[in-house]
Amino acid sequence: FLNLYGKNLALAWPDSEVENIRDPSIEIVVKTKRSYVLAGNEWKKDPTKVNVGKVEIGGKKVVVAAGPCAVESEEQTETVAREVKKAGASLLRGGAYKPRTSPYSFQGLGEEGLKILKKASEQTGLPVVSEILDARDRDAFARYVDMVQIGARNSQNFTLLREMGKLGKPVLLKRGLGNTVEELIQSAEYILMEGNGNVVLCERGIRTFEKSTRFTLDIGGMVAGKLMTHLPFCADPSHPAGKRELVHSLALASVAAGADMLLIEVHPKPEVALSDSEQQLTPESFSLLMERVRGLASVLGRSA
Amino acid sequence: FLNLYGKNLALAWPDSEVENIRDPSIEIVVKTKRSYVLAGNEWKKDPTKVNVGKVEIGGKKVVVAAGPCAVESEEQTETVAREVKKAGASLLRGGAYKPRTSPYSFQGLGEEGLKILKKASEQTGLPVVSEILDARDRDAFARYVDMVQIGARNSQNFTLLREMGKLGKPVLLKRGLGNTVEELIQSAEYILMEGNGNVVLCERGIRTFEKSTRFTLDIGGMVAGKLMTHLPFCADPSHPAGKRELVHSLALASVAAGADMLLIEVHPKPEVALSDSEQQLTPESFSLLMERVRGLASVLGRSA
Amino acid sequence: FLNLYGKNLALAWPDSEVENIRDPSIEIVVKTKRSYVLAGNEWKKDPTKVNVGKVEIGGKKVVVAAGPCAVESEEQTETVAREVKKAGASLLRGGAYKPRTSPYSFQGLGEEGLKILKKASEQTGLPVVSEILDARDRDAFARYVDMVQIGARNSQNFTLLREMGKLGKPVLLKRGLGNTVEELIQSAEYILMEGNGNVVLCERGIRTFEKSTRFTLDIGGMVAGKLMTHLPFCADPSHPAGKRELVHSLALASVAAGADMLLIEVHPKPEVALSDSEQQLTPESFSLLMERVRGLASVLGRSA
Amino acid sequence: FLNLYGKNLALAWPDSEVENIRDPSIEIVVKTKRSYVLAGNEWKKDPTKVNVGKVEIGGKKVVVAAGPCAVESEEQTETVAREVKKAGASLLRGGAYKPRTSPYSFQGLGEEGLKILKKASEQTGLPVVSEILDARDRDAFARYVDMVQIGARNSQNFTLLREMGKLGKPVLLKRGLGNTVEELIQSAEYILMEGNGNVVLCERGIRTFEKSTRFTLDIGGMVAGKLMTHLPFCADPSHPAGKRELVHSLALASVAAGADMLLIEVHPKPEVALSDSEQQLTPESFSLLMERVRGLASVLGRSA
Repeated sequence: FLNLYGKNLALAWPDSEVENIRDPSIEIVVKTKRSYVLAGNEWKKDPTKVNVGKVEIGGKKVVVAAGPCAVESEEQTETVAREVKKAGASLLRGGAYKPRTSPYSFQGLGEEGLKILKKASEQTGLPVVSEILDARDRDAFARYVDMVQIGARNSQNFTLLREMGKLGKPVLLKRGLGNTVEELIQSAEYILMEGNGNVVLCERGIRTFEKSTRFTLDIGGMVAGKLMTHLPFCADPSHPAGKRELVHSLALASVAAGADMLLIEVHPKPEVALSDSEQQLTPESFSLLMERVRGLASVLGRSA
Repeated sequence: FLNLYGKNLALAWPDSEVENIRDPSIEIVVKTKRSYVLAGNEWKKDPTKVNVGKVEIGGKKVVVAAGPCAVESEEQTETVAREVKKAGASLLRGGAYKPRTSPYSFQGLGEEGLKILKKASEQTGLPVVSEILDARDRDAFARYVDMVQIGARNSQNFTLLREMGKLGKPVLLKRGLGNTVEELIQSAEYILMEGNGNVVLCERGIRTFEKSTRFTLDIGGMVAGKLMTHLPFCADPSHPAGKRELVHSLALASVAAGADMLLIEVHPKPEVALSDSEQQLTPESFSLLMERVRGLASVLGRSA
Repeated sequence: FLNLYGKNLALAWPDSEVENIRDPSIEIVVKTKRSYVLAGNEWKKDPTKVNVGKVEIGGKKVVVAAGPCAVESEEQTETVAREVKKAGASLLRGGAYKPRTSPYSFQGLGEEGLKILKKASEQTGLPVVSEILDARDRDAFARYVDMVQIGARNSQNFTLLREMGKLGKPVLLKRGLGNTVEELIQSAEYILMEGNGNVVLCERGIRTFEKSTRFTLDIGGMVAGKLMTHLPFCADPSHPAGKRELVHSLALASVAAGADMLLIEVHPKPEVALSDSEQQLTPESFSLLMERVRGLASVLGRSA
Repeated sequence: FLNLYGKNLALAWPDSEVENIRDPSIEIVVKTKRSYVLAGNEWKKDPTKVNVGKVEIGGKKVVVAAGPCAVESEEQTETVAREVKKAGASLLRGGAYKPRTSPYSFQGLGEEGLKILKKASEQTGLPVVSEILDARDRDAFARYVDMVQIGARNSQNFTLLREMGKLGKPVLLKRGLGNTVEELIQSAEYILMEGNGNVVLCERGIRTFEKSTRFTLDIGGMVAGKLMTHLPFCADPSHPAGKRELVHSLALASVAAGADMLLIEVHPKPEVALSDSEQQLTPESFSLLMERVRGLASVLGRSA
């Protein structure tokens, strides 16, 4: 029994006795043969809109979240925040806890980083998106962050998914490097089951044999996914690109394919960034990208 | 020694003695450490434009080739040709020799199919693109076809590549299911080496673990490829989609990412098509797609 | 500063001042250009042997861990434990906390399952291997389990990796579906950094386009991995097989390629199993497999 | 209507009228729902044995074909032939026509190379396996070669497949880099349809994201394939390894998994080889491998 999108639901397994539920306020969701129900669009046809502060994701406007790969200092973060706000971003992204393949790479500033993001958010009015690695940090995220990101490496960390379901904050859920789109939607189901329907799915590239890009942005998977779920989709062109020169084209392609949100890495001086220095845009380049996204959105009947 | 793009070239291996060539009309192309030279953009910075009849590929206009997966009859082909012409296509595509994974699938009408295409071409003025499987059919292709397609399964059939280099007709070269973008460019090198510089590369999806689409359209690979070669790029959204519902989004994404050409399967009655019935568009849907492509192209500073 | 394999180590970054360390008991491990050090075999040439109770992994004997995919009941578990012990297994495996792609699949018996495993272990003398999903269950695992498994989906859950490093129990670390072998070794580095050197790496199949098996067992990756690390390697043929008929061949191939350990799913009645019913062996089939493994090991200069 | 394995067959499509065929010498093969029939094992349960000269592939003995990647000279080829014969190889492999990704790589000696192989074959009594790239070379192959190899890049070159079906020589058919095992079997169907049943399938590694090996040897796919077809399977451990150090382990794994044949690259001086110098074995290393293969085969109830 849970309440989702304003409805009272009873999740019923096909073999359960649900016929004698007589409470008229309860809408029964019968489990289909699919391995997910709540995240699927059989019972809920209308696209879900996720609100982060005053920002609506999944509506007419293509929402852009931008900011540094990693929060490195107050000055760096506030500079970027001002710049991306000016260029038209709606959300500030930044990593405080960084999941790094190697333990010898920069691991982020931790809670200190979240506080810096919060301060930059207060200065600019941009709500903050940041990645959580450990459910034990939930209180800090509850305090400083507006939308919690679950990264690709934790896309099937079911413990963390359930905890973020309970936390109740909007969640940006990334697809795992080796996961299908259907598995991504099943991971979202873990969050929805806890009564948290504010989930945005994020395509960020999968592992393939191709070597000219870091990951293969699966735009087709995103488009196919939109036919399977009512949840909005974000695209992250920065990580699969791996090279600055490719980010604009992948961002525009994602919007043309129907992405509701973009996640873009921007750094005041990418060449000295402590992580992902190859793929972060300068504020100038980001500003130009926003112009191009707005142009594109306009012919698609959207805004940006 | 060959002539390409109006220049006399001497292909020189680094260890060859080329210093004493005294003919001033010869521009020497020194082999770099890359495994391709002619198809690369170190010696030729300007994008190559490939002319098929009066149609220019690689210029301002996004060129659309459309038509049935397989030529089935005169009536079917002529109907489609008229419809796609009306909707704004620039080229007529259609398969006469079909490469089928199973020998029990429809193999195409062969030379009869080429004649049907030629007739439809004469009626509409649209030049014809069709796939060749066997170099021994070169005379028929020379007679009836304006642009020869080398399919994904023959992308590293070096015998066929060299023969198409010698034939001299414009070539649409598809990427193999398991090939990198760099390998696609190396395959083009085989054609260019024979003095035929009229090659358009085609991204048509690669094999990955994702199952919601038939192949994974590698838009990032295409964008990365455009930084490596002067040749124009085509995108084929029909084959990776595998489902009609996805074709529009993938086509728009390809154009937004910079594709110079689109290859779209259109059938008057997709539900009775002898091949690929799941992914061919109706003429109505194609017409709508053309409108959307034109809208998109306009904000990108192109036309369609 | 940590103690590993009986040595005092100082992990020194190349730019650190370590020259003036004068303590003769400290062996300095200089960070190489690789993104891992402790798990690499530049500083430690001899293969590591991991002890789980009296069982040694990485020595002459090919160690086999066998048992049900999921612990379903005391009777089921004890039956399997007796059978696999009789057939020659050295360790009892069984899942109490099950990571399931869909929240509607059987999630395991939890701590109750661990207690059942412990009881079966006491009856047979076989140490227990079981998967942990949530660091908060560490006390239960400390009490009931002899070797803690980190599953494929948590292979880059760095929080869990660090916690298992601190727990100090031997760890069976599985490769993620979308991770390279090098990334697997980097994940192990997180555990070693906490002073826990008892890590066995496990190849369990990766995601590829091939559909005749559930995952592609990357035996080449395991062999290449053995040249990169001093840690022992386990192979799990059950999960990539996805079909009972393939398990024997993949197990034998793994041993022939040099696996130090095998992880095999065995169920008294696979056809009624609550999970992975397609790929679990019957006790009879497992017994036959053990005979074949012993035969193979003997010609390879090993035992089983 | 064709004769295969000593049977007269009528290939009947399900919708054809075959009921009134009254010729008792004809065995009717009804097309099943599978996309291949002749290569499948529904109608032919017993494993097929392919004879190349006096060598039987698919029987008790694990057949080893060995020799240089490319024929470079008479001396090189004859040296290798003598050495591999002495070590226990049954077939001599060597490339005369080399399919190279880049046109600037060594392309082989062509027909001259075939003659060198033939001479080495006459000296040693080892039948020759060599790759064909162009159906127009069929006469040379008919004269000099005992088993024709179709390489990975031509695995779906249906023109070449049909021609090799007509040529009638035994065929070693390699799996394409991006092809499923089922597609490999469908490619074999093209050869069998022409009445040539002497086909050996070859697993040689597929394209995946893993980078520590050149390709991923799909041993699971080979094992699954053996359940789908009556044709024998060869494994090529040299190409996926890409590194000499891995070849032994992958060869042994393949035999343990049930390979009927191995294809091993051996060069008298690998370090100066004109192609694949990284992965060719020395004659000494090959001799050791043969010993290990024989040991392994003996415990599997086979010989080598």
